[in-house]
Amino acid sequence: MPSLPVGGRPIASPGSLHPSWSRVRKQVDEALLAFVDRQRPGLLAISDDLGPLLSALDALLAGGKRLRPAFCYWGWRAAGGGVDDPAIVHAAASLELLQASALIHDDVMDSSDTRRGQPSVHRRFEALHRAQGWPGAAVPFGSGTAILLGDLCLAWSSEMFETCELDEERRRRGRSVYDLMRTEVMCGQYLDMLEGTRGRATVDTALRVVEFKSAKYTVERPLHLGAALAGADPRVTAALTGYGLPLGIAFQLRDDVLGVFGDPAETGKPAGDDLREGKRTVLVALALERASRAQAAALERRLGDPELDRPGVDEARTIIEETGGLAACEAMIDGYLDEVGRALAAAPVAEEARDALAELAIAATARRT
Amino acid sequence: MPSLPVGGRPIASPGSLHPSWSRVRKQVDEALLAFVDRQRPGLLAISDDLGPLLSALDALLAGGKRLRPAFCYWGWRAAGGGVDDPAIVHAAASLELLQASALIHDDVMDSSDTRRGQPSVHRRFEALHRAQGWPGAAVPFGSGTAILLGDLCLAWSSEMFETCELDEERRRRGRSVYDLMRTEVMCGQYLDMLEGTRGRATVDTALRVVEFKSAKYTVERPLHLGAALAGADPRVTAALTGYGLPLGIAFQLRDDVLGVFGDPAETGKPAGDDLREGKRTVLVALALERASRAQAAALERRLGDPELDRPGVDEARTIIEETGGLAACEAMIDGYLDEVGRALAAAPVAEEARDALAELAIAATARRT
Repeated sequence: MPSLPVGGRPIASPGSLHPSWSRVRKQVDEALLAFVDRQRPGLLAISDDLGPLLSALDALLAGGKRLRPAFCYWGWRAAGGGVDDPAIVHAAASLELLQASALIHDDVMDSSDTRRGQPSVHRRFEALHRAQGWPGAAVPFGSGTAILLGDLCLAWSSEMFETCELDEERRRRGRSVYDLMRTEVMCGQYLDMLEGTRGRATVDTALRVVEFKSAKYTVERPLHLGAALAGADPRVTAALTGYGLPLGIAFQLRDDVLGVFGDPAETGKPAGDDLREGKRTVLVALALERASRAQAAALERRLGDPELDRPGVDEARTIIEETGGLAACEAMIDGYLDEVGRALAAAPVAEEARDALAELAIAATARRT
Repeated sequence: MPSLPVGGRPIASPGSLHPSWSRVRKQVDEALLAFVDRQRPGLLAISDDLGPLLSALDALLAGGKRLRPAFCYWGWRAAGGGVDDPAIVHAAASLELLQASALIHDDVMDSSDTRRGQPSVHRRFEALHRAQGWPGAAVPFGSGTAILLGDLCLAWSSEMFETCELDEERRRRGRSVYDLMRTEVMCGQYLDMLEGTRGRATVDTALRVVEFKSAKYTVERPLHLGAALAGADPRVTAALTGYGLPLGIAFQLRDDVLGVFGDPAETGKPAGDDLREGKRTVLVALALERASRAQAAALERRLGDPELDRPGVDEARTIIEETGGLAACEAMIDGYLDEVGRALAAAPVAEEARDALAELAIAATARRT
């Protein structure tokens, strides 16, 4: 595990939450639930038939690490925002609705069966359809519902963002980050799918996807959003990029490793799901770059095979390890974390924010789920 | 054709545009193009591979009747908004991006091949995939891309809405209409799909879908949005509901008729597309309500048959006519238009807005495309 020596002080264990964030995280969860609760009667007044949409959303929002709200909060604090200012809570919570939208749509696109340890939204509505014995086709009903619920979450995210009580000038600055973030993640998702279907990602093209789909979306932009809402100095914004971009890349590389080597009991996803989906991750690109012709052919055969079983997953894992792809990926994670540590040490931010950002860096990259 | 006698004056032909709207419509189109043009360099800086997303959006936005922006503009004018105030243009134009999102996602959900006389977005990207000979699967690439481009349009719609230059209080009032409209249309779309898959829509349940999916979304809320941005009096808002809801229902009933009886050369969609998609429209519910057992069975057999050919479409048309379903639907359209005329005659709005709203009512319901 990387040590991230910031100012010589020891780093708290990844599982623990900084006391300020622990308090604000509760407020974020409450605000999220309260927002959905405010929508509930309006939907049920249209029709009781909309109840299952709300239940599916409740189930999805119950899970999640709230990483993006955490980065948003600490971006705010790094830029001098108040410890317990309720204004940041709504903006931070709105990112969970954006993430819910991305997850629901992503699962349709990837035909994923599970999310956060439960059936994915489209599978949930396929199951509802079958249980009800409706005459139409269950699969398009499931995917159609997931498309619409994802749209609803996307719409509700911006609706919730706008409820943060700050003056219009700060909200306008925040909104421009929020808008940029949405565009970037959607473009990143497209490039990810494109690399998957073209099947010829290099480490460089895979890293470009990581930058837009993950690093900016998960870390850099939430930090910038919080900072913009706090009226950040440009030097703070730049320092948050210096910390956030390499951390975001390391975060995604950890995700790549967990997508192949993760324990289903901890990740809530079937073993080797990324292999089955044929994801052209940096990890895969690193392995293919180092593979013999025979190893490359064997790995390629398994990538994107929807029927890939456990022995097949194990064989692919062995190839990724034996080529040195896994070690190279771990080395990249360490390298990016070194950058993170250096950027953080030099960042013009308050000590409490620096400590919390160091903890978050560990939590985001040493995790097992 | 209904006559809508408002104040005894003759109604202009449906094709003509009111001079004020004709001018503003050009500004709306220009603002829409300018907005997409401002996004273009940002996307291409991420990757040249994003070019096809922009081309697909350009092609889609080139078509369309701009009905929602027109209602938004006349809601604004009805509430006393200025004739040539640039503030309304951005809000009105943002509705076209919302509509683009709805169309792109709707076409994925319905597996539609065409839209506005061109290939639908998902088919366009399937074709790109095949033309490039990429190794992955073309169909999920097409639908995945359409999901993402629809998401992008939804995000860009709210981004564009927020650029309308009005004081924060008016924008806040407008935003609450805009938020409600998005939620209503997504819920309406879900109920529409649900009725289709349950296959047991009555005239009443089909009308509930029409209210939320079409009447509010296409007519009432755009009117309210414009009115809210102009700082409308509640009496004006109520009058716009009196005009807008029945007009919106009549609009959708006309759509139902065109979806079965429309001329492909005029609609840009294959003949009888609604039958092939198994849409449980009010028209279909009216026919089934009046059908003999044999007629009902014959119509049910054709509904949702993706292979339905021209003779099959003709047989379904004959049943819908012979049961009296078509005549009943036309009578409903006339009845709603009578309501529209009465509401408009009594509405506390300026004469120019009244005339233009009367023209729009004709254009929305006597159309052939």
